[in-house]
Amino acid sequence: MANQLSLGLIGAGRIGRVHAESISRISHAHIVGVADVFLENAEKCAADFGIPAAHQDPRALLDDPTIDAIVVCSSTDTHTRFIIEAAEAGKHIFCEKPIALNLADIDRALATVERCGVKLQIGFNRRFDSNFRHIHEAVKRGDIGDPHLIRITSRDPAPPPLSYVKVSGGLFLDMMIHDFDMVRYLVGAEVEELYAMGAVLIDPTIGEAGDIDTAVVSLKFANGAMGFIENSRQARYGYDQRAEVFGSKGAIESSNKTAHNTRWSTANGVMEPNPLYFFLERYLDSYTAEMRAFIDAIQQNVPTAVTGRDGRIPVVMGLAAGLSLRERRPVCLAEIAAA
Amino acid sequence: MANQLSLGLIGAGRIGRVHAESISRISHAHIVGVADVFLENAEKCAADFGIPAAHQDPRALLDDPTIDAIVVCSSTDTHTRFIIEAAEAGKHIFCEKPIALNLADIDRALATVERCGVKLQIGFNRRFDSNFRHIHEAVKRGDIGDPHLIRITSRDPAPPPLSYVKVSGGLFLDMMIHDFDMVRYLVGAEVEELYAMGAVLIDPTIGEAGDIDTAVVSLKFANGAMGFIENSRQARYGYDQRAEVFGSKGAIESSNKTAHNTRWSTANGVMEPNPLYFFLERYLDSYTAEMRAFIDAIQQNVPTAVTGRDGRIPVVMGLAAGLSLRERRPVCLAEIAAA
Amino acid sequence: MANQLSLGLIGAGRIGRVHAESISRISHAHIVGVADVFLENAEKCAADFGIPAAHQDPRALLDDPTIDAIVVCSSTDTHTRFIIEAAEAGKHIFCEKPIALNLADIDRALATVERCGVKLQIGFNRRFDSNFRHIHEAVKRGDIGDPHLIRITSRDPAPPPLSYVKVSGGLFLDMMIHDFDMVRYLVGAEVEELYAMGAVLIDPTIGEAGDIDTAVVSLKFANGAMGFIENSRQARYGYDQRAEVFGSKGAIESSNKTAHNTRWSTANGVMEPNPLYFFLERYLDSYTAEMRAFIDAIQQNVPTAVTGRDGRIPVVMGLAAGLSLRERRPVCLAEIAAA
Amino acid sequence: MANQLSLGLIGAGRIGRVHAESISRISHAHIVGVADVFLENAEKCAADFGIPAAHQDPRALLDDPTIDAIVVCSSTDTHTRFIIEAAEAGKHIFCEKPIALNLADIDRALATVERCGVKLQIGFNRRFDSNFRHIHEAVKRGDIGDPHLIRITSRDPAPPPLSYVKVSGGLFLDMMIHDFDMVRYLVGAEVEELYAMGAVLIDPTIGEAGDIDTAVVSLKFANGAMGFIENSRQARYGYDQRAEVFGSKGAIESSNKTAHNTRWSTANGVMEPNPLYFFLERYLDSYTAEMRAFIDAIQQNVPTAVTGRDGRIPVVMGLAAGLSLRERRPVCLAEIAAA
Repeated sequence: MANQLSLGLIGAGRIGRVHAESISRISHAHIVGVADVFLENAEKCAADFGIPAAHQDPRALLDDPTIDAIVVCSSTDTHTRFIIEAAEAGKHIFCEKPIALNLADIDRALATVERCGVKLQIGFNRRFDSNFRHIHEAVKRGDIGDPHLIRITSRDPAPPPLSYVKVSGGLFLDMMIHDFDMVRYLVGAEVEELYAMGAVLIDPTIGEAGDIDTAVVSLKFANGAMGFIENSRQARYGYDQRAEVFGSKGAIESSNKTAHNTRWSTANGVMEPNPLYFFLERYLDSYTAEMRAFIDAIQQNVPTAVTGRDGRIPVVMGLAAGLSLRERRPVCLAEIAAA
Repeated sequence: MANQLSLGLIGAGRIGRVHAESISRISHAHIVGVADVFLENAEKCAADFGIPAAHQDPRALLDDPTIDAIVVCSSTDTHTRFIIEAAEAGKHIFCEKPIALNLADIDRALATVERCGVKLQIGFNRRFDSNFRHIHEAVKRGDIGDPHLIRITSRDPAPPPLSYVKVSGGLFLDMMIHDFDMVRYLVGAEVEELYAMGAVLIDPTIGEAGDIDTAVVSLKFANGAMGFIENSRQARYGYDQRAEVFGSKGAIESSNKTAHNTRWSTANGVMEPNPLYFFLERYLDSYTAEMRAFIDAIQQNVPTAVTGRDGRIPVVMGLAAGLSLRERRPVCLAEIAAA
Repeated sequence: MANQLSLGLIGAGRIGRVHAESISRISHAHIVGVADVFLENAEKCAADFGIPAAHQDPRALLDDPTIDAIVVCSSTDTHTRFIIEAAEAGKHIFCEKPIALNLADIDRALATVERCGVKLQIGFNRRFDSNFRHIHEAVKRGDIGDPHLIRITSRDPAPPPLSYVKVSGGLFLDMMIHDFDMVRYLVGAEVEELYAMGAVLIDPTIGEAGDIDTAVVSLKFANGAMGFIENSRQARYGYDQRAEVFGSKGAIESSNKTAHNTRWSTANGVMEPNPLYFFLERYLDSYTAEMRAFIDAIQQNVPTAVTGRDGRIPVVMGLAAGLSLRERRPVCLAEIAAA
Repeated sequence: MANQLSLGLIGAGRIGRVHAESISRISHAHIVGVADVFLENAEKCAADFGIPAAHQDPRALLDDPTIDAIVVCSSTDTHTRFIIEAAEAGKHIFCEKPIALNLADIDRALATVERCGVKLQIGFNRRFDSNFRHIHEAVKRGDIGDPHLIRITSRDPAPPPLSYVKVSGGLFLDMMIHDFDMVRYLVGAEVEELYAMGAVLIDPTIGEAGDIDTAVVSLKFANGAMGFIENSRQARYGYDQRAEVFGSKGAIESSNKTAHNTRWSTANGVMEPNPLYFFLERYLDSYTAEMRAFIDAIQQNVPTAVTGRDGRIPVVMGLAAGLSLRERRPVCLAEIAAA
């Protein structure tokens, strides 16, 4: 069919499989090949989602002239390499966040994308969540007037394995990076300055690995708005994902999503269900929606919803937060961007 | 002071003390004497609320020319007697619900009130609760269009003592009578027909005493609306007092009131507080407001907010519900009113 | 693949397409042919969901030996004919509700199913909704003790076209039939007696067509519980689908589902989103879940979750409600079942 | 009566009248005299609340040997003077917040109180609000484990008059001072360091007067917890007063209080009432409760619930926040306390 899009998937781990499932539900796109450094992962993914070919070497996909676009779900340290190779092969690219943990690599990758004229969408899936999307649209429409304050409450149900913590880039670049993207998306303005506080309150081994598990970051925006993000690696009651934007005409806030909407009343109190446990449950629909948006952007030849620049700025913010925490002072994003 | 109202209180039990406290908060009225068949009750009430005189015989109040109005809080079987005696003494009357358990007594009392030209307010305090008042006003204003359906959920936290059950007139005249008043108040129309189901599901001794502890009554209104009331004598989670009116433009409903507005999230779920335990907690403000309204009606010489007729109709409804339950058929209120 | 189930779909209207989409998401089942009295419907459905064959005559499916099961989504008056023909062809059957509008046809169909030893599941999809399923399980687990009271609030956003009203069997058999199923499912006991009130409050042409648009039905259960269902054909704020079960230890209730969980605060008040608009939005997930359950029941050779008897009883209840309304008296289900 | 407490009230403005009304509801205390620099204020207050004497000169109260305690509700700049004079007159003291806008005055006042051995309670009334009290107790009980994060959302419905802004001490010492008290009360630990961001987003004349109208302050506590306070002088939807404490076992948060608990559903959405408009409505009960606590502390001879030290620390925090804002850097409280 003329308007069937052919995709290649690099990386068949957890998030790769999420995208494979999403794509299997989209009638006008299909994955023609999957590659993973562990071949058995690629083979299992191929079997589970009806993908015709499984490879160990991603070149098999990059060299396949029938493939229109590459979905990059490999480990972070390989992202820019695959972005560059895919771009040079003339393929559109969907790449998981973060693009990279340093700006030099990111800038090299984005320059190549620019030069090759392919589309790039970064995997900030939360923009496609119905709660956050609704707030974004309400703010944009002026429902709350000029934004004055924003709050992001973002807490994981449990810390990742220590092995992951060590290569993750740290809380600011691994976890809060989503929230850095979210504040830009919801307020509709850029952050100019931030101040970070962080601590190890949950697990000392996270501290020994050089990271923090709890953080509060204050933000100042170019349009005068202020706000803060708070992160914890361990909310016993589940994945806590809320936001509020307050402005000159009012406020809009979102609460968590739950598996069902019931209230159970007994002598002990009135009980409601916990939030959906973690990102795979909470953001399931958003993963499908972001992939649909990527495919639509290609087929309709319009800019992607989350550009390379949108992928770069949260990294700048994460680096600024790290610097702020180390030097115990507010940091302007311009310091980082200029570095 | 010219506009200080002098009140006499008959009955110094639980509800009498509630009204004594309410009146103590109203600057332009005061109780000058309290009477109770148990003198020590009257004396304690007088001491606690700074009432100058305590009596055993209510005649002391009825004969006191300085008293403007009588508040009748004695046992139900004495209500009509005191209404009649107070009316004949030219005093305005506030009387607790129900006026009586039979229509003949009620009609005698109301005729006397009419003849003597005094004001009478019946103690349907829930009309003064902020939730129910707001629904009443919203419906009246047309916020939900023409009313089509009404629901009253009314559940006590625990059954009354058996000794009380035996003299109470039964669930329909003791407990649901408030809800019979409420449906008229909220819908703004009269009930024409009802059908009652009842059962003993909580305590068999209630059944042995000839009463029920759980009931569902369907209602048909003169304006075409329909609805139902459900009662239980025992909600383990506390006093459940909710209503909803649905109409051609929308719906309005109330939820319970709680001692505080907090949510507590743990691995076990998200917990909110139980409803306020029982009527003294839940309707505290409404008792003060109804007494203020009574005093205002006298001082401004306007009709009372809950008239003798408003006191009579719920008794008709309670009798109709009893007949419906016994004969297992729908009953028109006209059957009872005509009896 | 040995455990791939082959299905034939009869009826490619709105609900047929809902099931076609659900099945397209289930990896171990596929539709091999679709039939519709309007061939173009069948062809469009085949094209949209990748179904290999489209027919006008359903015999093409019934005679196809490769087909394991038939999904009956045709008009109600053809349900029993296709159930019987499919059963006699040795095929398992999923059939939309109601099985038929009269018991004689239902009993003939169920007897055939019984005789032929095939599986039958009736399309009471709401049992698979996460809210109602959670209440069902909580009640079954004893979370609220013995059930005493049940309430079902069920309101459509807008009445169906008059042409549909005329052939629908009326509000009790078309709309409230879902709620009749729900009360059995949630309370875990059978209804013994009911009393129906009904009126035309929304659209007089519905009354001229011999139907009602608003109804309240009181219920008495075999286990002593009582309850009621209320229906309206027009809730301006959207599809209102709530339930509450109250028992000796507490209560559990569900609220509506919404497209997002946000609150918008302005000088005019605090606004939350309306309920999801209608059944396709509200019960989307439940349609997929019921189809999964049907396929699982076949593949694991266990009884279906909604049996022929489960399909018959709500029709008995609907007929009893109609009789109650006409004769203005409570009706025992035994009267109908025995008729 | 032996246990009747006699009080003198200095300052008959808005907050003075609030306390006069509270005391009129407390049976074991009464105000014997009121003084105000505007005699007519004192006289009106005396008339309205049945206070026997009205004065212009507060010495009349300080010299009255029958007076047990003084309630200081005059303008902030007179607080320490009256504390000192009352203490030297051997009278217990209730004083509105803040004690003063500088530490030297505060320390002089507290030293005098200490030396004279009288009791002092500072008017941080929010500690007596049922929401915040419940959170405080839950945290203390360990319901959420060790506190990790706290959030205070505190927004006024409208800015005060500019004349008030100019003498108020600024947002940090006038408005956020309540929140500085609240974080200590809720977390149960002292703040060690804070970082303040502030802006003029609502009314430029506030900026011209040298103040800000919007602020975000990050906090670091001695026990490792972190958090933030956000203030706005103008929330169009009313007085927004919420808090959340998150810890190792869970979280507890409070929502706003409203005049009634109803939901109104129409085609436009589901509407709930705005928060209670401002502090007089929202914190009415807390004012009564704090006054009861003060009187109980005297009569039972126990320490007051909000000590002089509790009054001093929020001023330190306010001064630290001002310094942080001016110097754009985090400030340790020790810097201020040592100054």
